[in-house]
Amino acid sequence: MNEDLKINLERLISTFDTSSSIGVTKNNGLNRIGLTSDDKKMRDIFVEWLKDEGLDIRIDDLGNIYGKRCGTSPDENPVVIGSHLDTQPNGGRFDGILGVLSSLEVIRVLNEKDIKTKRSIEIVNFTLEEGARFGIPMEGSGVITGNYEKEYVYKLNDKNNVTFKEALESIGYRGEIVNRLKNPGFFVELHIEQGPMLEINDKQIGIVEGVKGVTKFEVVIEGQASHAAYPAIGRRDALVASSEMVLFIDSITEQFDDLSTTVGVFEVSPSLYSMSAGRVKFTFDVRHINDQIRAKAIKLIINEIKKIANEKTLNYEVNEFWNIDGTYFSNKINNLIENSIVKRDYTYQYITSGAGHDAKFFNDLCDSTVIFTPSKDGLSHCEEEFTSFDDIEKAANVLLDITYDLANK
Amino acid sequence: MNEDLKINLERLISTFDTSSSIGVTKNNGLNRIGLTSDDKKMRDIFVEWLKDEGLDIRIDDLGNIYGKRCGTSPDENPVVIGSHLDTQPNGGRFDGILGVLSSLEVIRVLNEKDIKTKRSIEIVNFTLEEGARFGIPMEGSGVITGNYEKEYVYKLNDKNNVTFKEALESIGYRGEIVNRLKNPGFFVELHIEQGPMLEINDKQIGIVEGVKGVTKFEVVIEGQASHAAYPAIGRRDALVASSEMVLFIDSITEQFDDLSTTVGVFEVSPSLYSMSAGRVKFTFDVRHINDQIRAKAIKLIINEIKKIANEKTLNYEVNEFWNIDGTYFSNKINNLIENSIVKRDYTYQYITSGAGHDAKFFNDLCDSTVIFTPSKDGLSHCEEEFTSFDDIEKAANVLLDITYDLANK
Repeated sequence: MNEDLKINLERLISTFDTSSSIGVTKNNGLNRIGLTSDDKKMRDIFVEWLKDEGLDIRIDDLGNIYGKRCGTSPDENPVVIGSHLDTQPNGGRFDGILGVLSSLEVIRVLNEKDIKTKRSIEIVNFTLEEGARFGIPMEGSGVITGNYEKEYVYKLNDKNNVTFKEALESIGYRGEIVNRLKNPGFFVELHIEQGPMLEINDKQIGIVEGVKGVTKFEVVIEGQASHAAYPAIGRRDALVASSEMVLFIDSITEQFDDLSTTVGVFEVSPSLYSMSAGRVKFTFDVRHINDQIRAKAIKLIINEIKKIANEKTLNYEVNEFWNIDGTYFSNKINNLIENSIVKRDYTYQYITSGAGHDAKFFNDLCDSTVIFTPSKDGLSHCEEEFTSFDDIEKAANVLLDITYDLANK
Repeated sequence: MNEDLKINLERLISTFDTSSSIGVTKNNGLNRIGLTSDDKKMRDIFVEWLKDEGLDIRIDDLGNIYGKRCGTSPDENPVVIGSHLDTQPNGGRFDGILGVLSSLEVIRVLNEKDIKTKRSIEIVNFTLEEGARFGIPMEGSGVITGNYEKEYVYKLNDKNNVTFKEALESIGYRGEIVNRLKNPGFFVELHIEQGPMLEINDKQIGIVEGVKGVTKFEVVIEGQASHAAYPAIGRRDALVASSEMVLFIDSITEQFDDLSTTVGVFEVSPSLYSMSAGRVKFTFDVRHINDQIRAKAIKLIINEIKKIANEKTLNYEVNEFWNIDGTYFSNKINNLIENSIVKRDYTYQYITSGAGHDAKFFNDLCDSTVIFTPSKDGLSHCEEEFTSFDDIEKAANVLLDITYDLANK
């Protein structure tokens, strides 16, 4: 790392102020859904900023925006930094946006100091990472990394029956397929944590080890609805049994470090004043980066569901309907990040992410990772989303260091 | 009791067969909602049967049907026996019907043997005990015992906007107010248990001590919905807390003999695949004949709800929205019933009822009680409802004894 480098916080705050004024909600959040007029406004300004830095600008056929700062060895694969400028409905000012604006600040510092790097650096804004409009997340990065078919994404409809392709064309951001990012060398994304761990542990930066794998199940428990006048003995109450299952699914997180479980859908029938429950349908999901640990927890949960149902002579069904294995990010990059943090004397921890972010797709193509900043009260995707500029300054400095280091590798 | 008396099972079965053919469902249940054409068919036949026994027949302004067998001391208040011939939608062949048809058999035996009694005996079929059509139960007995206003019941609408009064008139069963039952001396109702206790305890007859009091509450638990990607630590999951509450409400029945509790309505928000619960609304009801015991159980439950909510820093509301105190039936009659059972060498137990039946209203006017027969698997209000004729014969003999005894008191 170059110890003279540091970001200009005042400038970064001013960049944020501009972003925070486009699509603003009444409680100072942002409602900047991808491929809407507010998204276009933000994109247009972003493109101007890239021009101001003299970058080589491209728009690809998904509307992803790239700005390339050429290195001295154009044959080396580039270092890619960035994230997304779109938000959830009534979302916050930081999720995604932090990664793009900090990357821009990195470029500005390098330009200001006239620093040459061996590799090129590409800053990127991915289209519709939030997936809030067309139902699937990470549409822009998903297609260019080969995870989604382009035609599939183009035909996705929003609730007003506008397709992705129509929306993309309507804001004038349908570019050329030749402009897609090719052969990334490294990908680094700065992002807010979207959870409370850094705040709870009082750490300034999270080095993201990887993304938790997720397995989802649907469970149906069938007993017998009884009138409330029926005595306590001899009932086959599906809600009482399901309550035991919920508590087991919740408490198993104490057995495995960093495991998280969630009972999501929970539907009780008949759900009437004077009737016990004859049937409960619920879903649960189990998240852990390590696939073996996740499998072990799942086995314990399913065994417990069977045991409870059998003891109470209830019928049950347990069906897996979704699985994504855990993703491990690049240790190589993470070690460099740790070096930067230690030199700068920031506090930090290694952490896993519950959500994928654009980096998850890039990890299949090149060494990738994510750097986390703390989220106040662990909140995200809401107007209250907040990361302090103290924390942002530190994380942006680390992003500057790692970009410089990787670009000279 | 007169030890020579016993009911004619063959005749009673034949009476049942007729009833079981009116409003029959495809699975051999009955769908004989009150004040419908099938109810009229059954009523017309019942009136014919009463005529055949030479009874003095009256229809009152609620459509209740009475048949009076005059005693030798017409100034003494009559013994009233009976129940209701209407059913729940897709209900069974026994609930209510058993009480009316067995009472008819009692009259037939007394007539056949030409037995005179001191008091008159009145057999009764009450209108719409099930309340399946106009939303409140026990409409016929409720008005004549002063528990409902007649005008209120007359104006009740069914789902097709037909009023009780219109329905009553349409089947030709709106009689005169002067025909209402006056000054009952005793009321005895034979009914199926609608629960499993006699079957579980292998008893042929239940002597009903009284009706459990009922208190109902609505509970709202508010935490914070979190995305499933959020770590296990720091969540405020309203479903996990509510599950603990459900288990406490269920398990408290082990602390108090004959207490029953039911969580009925149970609604989770947002109930989405990848979100934990931010809010749960549920209702619970607590049933015990003894008001002090019920109050004690309620206090323990509410304390536990508060404790769980506070431990997990959740907001909560607990509101009582319904209370009926416990009812104790006549020990005097129950002792006589016990004498009859012992002499006839049947097995029996004392039992409380979770539901009111017409007898609950009569208990305020005169010594009243209910006799229970076993229900297979505890089921009622469904096509599977079943009581064996072995059990029915025994219970009808006891009804015969107690009617005879009370009528000569």
